[in-house]
Amino acid sequence: MLKTTIIGASGYTGAELALMVHKHPELTLSGLYVSANSVDAGKSISELHRKLTGLVDEPVQPLTNVEQVAKSSDVVFLATAHEVSHDLAQQFLEQECQVFDLSGAFRVKQEGFYPKYYGFSHKYDVLLDNSAYGLVEWNAEGIKQSPLIAVPGCYPTASQLAIKPLLESGLIDTAQWPVINATSGVSGAGRKATMNNSFCEVSLKPYGVFSHRHQPEIATHLGCDVIFTPHLGNFKRGILATITMKLAQGATEQQVNAAFESAYQGKPAVRLLGDELPTIQNVENTPFCDIGWKVQGEHIIVVSAIDNLLKGASSQAMQCLNIHFGFPELTALV
Amino acid sequence: MLKTTIIGASGYTGAELALMVHKHPELTLSGLYVSANSVDAGKSISELHRKLTGLVDEPVQPLTNVEQVAKSSDVVFLATAHEVSHDLAQQFLEQECQVFDLSGAFRVKQEGFYPKYYGFSHKYDVLLDNSAYGLVEWNAEGIKQSPLIAVPGCYPTASQLAIKPLLESGLIDTAQWPVINATSGVSGAGRKATMNNSFCEVSLKPYGVFSHRHQPEIATHLGCDVIFTPHLGNFKRGILATITMKLAQGATEQQVNAAFESAYQGKPAVRLLGDELPTIQNVENTPFCDIGWKVQGEHIIVVSAIDNLLKGASSQAMQCLNIHFGFPELTALV
Amino acid sequence: MLKTTIIGASGYTGAELALMVHKHPELTLSGLYVSANSVDAGKSISELHRKLTGLVDEPVQPLTNVEQVAKSSDVVFLATAHEVSHDLAQQFLEQECQVFDLSGAFRVKQEGFYPKYYGFSHKYDVLLDNSAYGLVEWNAEGIKQSPLIAVPGCYPTASQLAIKPLLESGLIDTAQWPVINATSGVSGAGRKATMNNSFCEVSLKPYGVFSHRHQPEIATHLGCDVIFTPHLGNFKRGILATITMKLAQGATEQQVNAAFESAYQGKPAVRLLGDELPTIQNVENTPFCDIGWKVQGEHIIVVSAIDNLLKGASSQAMQCLNIHFGFPELTALV
Amino acid sequence: MLKTTIIGASGYTGAELALMVHKHPELTLSGLYVSANSVDAGKSISELHRKLTGLVDEPVQPLTNVEQVAKSSDVVFLATAHEVSHDLAQQFLEQECQVFDLSGAFRVKQEGFYPKYYGFSHKYDVLLDNSAYGLVEWNAEGIKQSPLIAVPGCYPTASQLAIKPLLESGLIDTAQWPVINATSGVSGAGRKATMNNSFCEVSLKPYGVFSHRHQPEIATHLGCDVIFTPHLGNFKRGILATITMKLAQGATEQQVNAAFESAYQGKPAVRLLGDELPTIQNVENTPFCDIGWKVQGEHIIVVSAIDNLLKGASSQAMQCLNIHFGFPELTALV
Repeated sequence: MLKTTIIGASGYTGAELALMVHKHPELTLSGLYVSANSVDAGKSISELHRKLTGLVDEPVQPLTNVEQVAKSSDVVFLATAHEVSHDLAQQFLEQECQVFDLSGAFRVKQEGFYPKYYGFSHKYDVLLDNSAYGLVEWNAEGIKQSPLIAVPGCYPTASQLAIKPLLESGLIDTAQWPVINATSGVSGAGRKATMNNSFCEVSLKPYGVFSHRHQPEIATHLGCDVIFTPHLGNFKRGILATITMKLAQGATEQQVNAAFESAYQGKPAVRLLGDELPTIQNVENTPFCDIGWKVQGEHIIVVSAIDNLLKGASSQAMQCLNIHFGFPELTALV
Repeated sequence: MLKTTIIGASGYTGAELALMVHKHPELTLSGLYVSANSVDAGKSISELHRKLTGLVDEPVQPLTNVEQVAKSSDVVFLATAHEVSHDLAQQFLEQECQVFDLSGAFRVKQEGFYPKYYGFSHKYDVLLDNSAYGLVEWNAEGIKQSPLIAVPGCYPTASQLAIKPLLESGLIDTAQWPVINATSGVSGAGRKATMNNSFCEVSLKPYGVFSHRHQPEIATHLGCDVIFTPHLGNFKRGILATITMKLAQGATEQQVNAAFESAYQGKPAVRLLGDELPTIQNVENTPFCDIGWKVQGEHIIVVSAIDNLLKGASSQAMQCLNIHFGFPELTALV
Repeated sequence: MLKTTIIGASGYTGAELALMVHKHPELTLSGLYVSANSVDAGKSISELHRKLTGLVDEPVQPLTNVEQVAKSSDVVFLATAHEVSHDLAQQFLEQECQVFDLSGAFRVKQEGFYPKYYGFSHKYDVLLDNSAYGLVEWNAEGIKQSPLIAVPGCYPTASQLAIKPLLESGLIDTAQWPVINATSGVSGAGRKATMNNSFCEVSLKPYGVFSHRHQPEIATHLGCDVIFTPHLGNFKRGILATITMKLAQGATEQQVNAAFESAYQGKPAVRLLGDELPTIQNVENTPFCDIGWKVQGEHIIVVSAIDNLLKGASSQAMQCLNIHFGFPELTALV
Repeated sequence: MLKTTIIGASGYTGAELALMVHKHPELTLSGLYVSANSVDAGKSISELHRKLTGLVDEPVQPLTNVEQVAKSSDVVFLATAHEVSHDLAQQFLEQECQVFDLSGAFRVKQEGFYPKYYGFSHKYDVLLDNSAYGLVEWNAEGIKQSPLIAVPGCYPTASQLAIKPLLESGLIDTAQWPVINATSGVSGAGRKATMNNSFCEVSLKPYGVFSHRHQPEIATHLGCDVIFTPHLGNFKRGILATITMKLAQGATEQQVNAAFESAYQGKPAVRLLGDELPTIQNVENTPFCDIGWKVQGEHIIVVSAIDNLLKGASSQAMQCLNIHFGFPELTALV
């Protein structure tokens, strides 16, 4: 049994992870932590997330001694703010913990990226270089080997899973940038009180246009420019991404179909729907990414849907763990 | 044209009032104000409430000199916090403004009520005694005469309009306390960011059980004990109140029907639906209170629905103004 | 492995059952059926309920030969219309299937009940007499022994679990009828297209006032009159019941607390929250019934919350199966 | 006073029109009609749309004698199915009624369009040629003169108002087709019961990809190819359109701003938000189209929001009427 610790357990992704660890036959929960100054420190996780009552009732403790926590952990999930993950990862790795970081702190290996998009300078170049990007269906080898897995962002997961099969097969004319329009449920902004997330203020709208930090995450990992326009939707969970692209000259619908089927054969978390298009409801509370597409003339529209807290965060982190340790990929997830 | 000033214009009820003043043929908007230390001070009201853009774009100013504002106003709406209204009313009355207070500061004339339910001692006994309770359909005379109208709370409006016709006709057996179960949209909690109002946390639930300050407001004005259980619903606006009562011995359905019809004949803001029961959707964005009822054996269930921001606050305040000044009752409201 | 067949698999409760059978280590899915003339016959269940894709993709077959289906089944769930269950149960019992009926066909043993509330005469008195009411926490013995389990209705489950501990302990003054106000998500009306369930028409409202068939189901099984007022809420799943009662003379809060704790000790599907009141969100997609309460003077308010499709239907049916066959009570449910 | 008749008054757009006619100082309601075989015939409009109670309670009559209805009407709104409008328009025009058709029957003057996209052959070429497309801000002259106004579709209104200022100013590189992603509330599908519109089935999803009839309506009236991907959203009213375009070589942000300002100066139903992007909530229940935009490098994203039942249908129809008869443009609308 792997002793598993969750840092940042008070948030929505932390709660999902706690439930997964509870269900996982090879993991045992060794501790739930939050920042020492958090108002949630000392409460039980089921007091913060009542739905866990009777399932996971452990206390959420203040993280005061990282070294000690690290020594009593085999596996650590960092469900913490970007800068906090950036600071903590090294300390857990030094104690030989296997680290799964759900923040953006180790996702993008690009000069100037962190100051521009996250507002801090990255101090751990070596870690950044050696971390593996946890896009499960495309980087199983890296995930198996690296002690630090950078779990992808929610929008980047939905976007890349939809685009990559075509791009890798040379079926897209990238001179015309793929246009990604995506809508996320409000939980994407985390568990906190802001006017923006206030019930009466939520209504479908775009945000972060031309400036969202997930745009360079997507572009860098795809190796291709994209236009990414996120929207806030009036629902709690889920992301739907609608992606419009120009096909490469001569690319056929048959090739498109083959590219998707070949990319995701034997990948249990991706469900290909062909020309039936996905909807958020069908992936809510599941670890799946549903993908559908339609071709007309020179254009293709690919649509993908995920649960932003699961395939867009916690279940993808757990998939990474399952792959890293050789457990069946969807253990504790279905 | 009456010069009309709104204090507390940044909230949801303030915005509704601003729109009504804009539509009202006999009113002119003389100023929008917020507390001097509000982050909203200096912005235009349409920046705070984008739906007003192009209709009401006046600035929301910091309230620094009450006397001066009062001198340039004929009418003042106080859409302010209870304690703020309590402090301001006197100052506006001294300058001979007609005051409509949407807070709870002047609603209940009962020893010990304010310290217990609002957390402050009331310092203006004379004002409290001379204020008129603005339950339009039941206190038109008081509203016409008093310079200070205490506009009723949202739940008390929905509850009293449903119960009062029967109670006044002696058709209720009050030995068995009326049971009021009511559900309000989230806007009832005002325009502010709290975890409780955070989109992801909102889900149907009771609150304030046996302790909500609207229970004594209802009981005092009815002159009858009640059990009042408010709920938060997952919608933005509206209140539905379902009220279960025991009929007085010998009371007949015919008498019940007659009591409602007689109470609300010629009252344009109450719509009697008979045995068709109300729904929130039909009163959203309207000044109406819909009321329906069913009798079986010794029991009656009365259901009422209002828009909490309108008949439960701003449109009732405007109805009070219309009545006070002799304008048609629904001017600027339909 | 018990061969398990689901009749009425195209509906929401059928789909939940299919998923549970899929997860259950002691069950194997032997067949999914719908009425022979259903438009859904021949489709796969995951075509009807896309969220099942990749998990349960079996075809939903027309039920043409009941005897043959029965012979190849150990266990049968009837997730069918009331009259259909009424007609089918006997045929499955004759082939020695263990039957769990989610309809209302075998719930109430009372002269005249079925013609009045369900519109048909009951032809199987012996079955009705020998069926066990599947209110898990209160009838484990009956459930263990009977070959025909009548799984309770959704409102009756939420209501009885909240009231029974107090009533059985003599803590309620039943001269004053308990007042049950409950709100259900739209899925309670089943998977079908009606104006009433049309997205644009759904808004919080009461229905079936004084006439809902769950009133006599509750009253009969409690042995006490109740006033039951159901409401339709603007959400997909869940029921919240708010119950107002008068305490028996001399009953204390301590006795109330003891009654709840004693009733549900060792019952894993009931979560007692004490004076923290439940909310629908915390029981959505779970098999739990959350219960909280508050006492003031002579009155008590008890609030319960369940997922109407789970504890109010499918997971309670599966709990019955687990109890009947001696499996851990929440197998396949958490 | 113009005698105004509404055909198809039982639907959502019909109800909105009835309310507007009621408010309009220059119109009097001469009749509400539905198809002779409609189940709604004979009911009052407020029975069908309870929110109209006390405001418009007229009966919805079966349309049996078109000629007679036409003779007693000055103005006719056709809020009818496409094929019904196609059949009726001529008959009303013959009696010299001014006709505002909210259907798609007279919108697109293109060979083969009606059989392909609407499933019927158009039999009134002359009418089609002489009808005016009612995109208010761009065709005031046509609207003033024509006796038959084809009120634009909801998506085409939101899309064209956002694109046209740039396209007409030559600021768009149309070699790269504008990508329109739009999401509509469920009321866009009309007042009817379908599985698709059933509350429990609604969840954000694309539909009609590459095949929606509004694509050619937009493309024809713009004179430019577009990719149009509509989505169904989980809300009742409103459309948000997010449009991604490539700027023409050398086009500057300043030119873009100037194009919008020049296009909509003096147009009261369009509100330009500059780089603040619109949200649906702010246009709900209003006649406005809000437009915002952002430029980066060669690309521009323009976002528009309307209430699909108002600016996308009924209020635009009423704007057309106001313009045609020379009334202030937003009469009865704000």
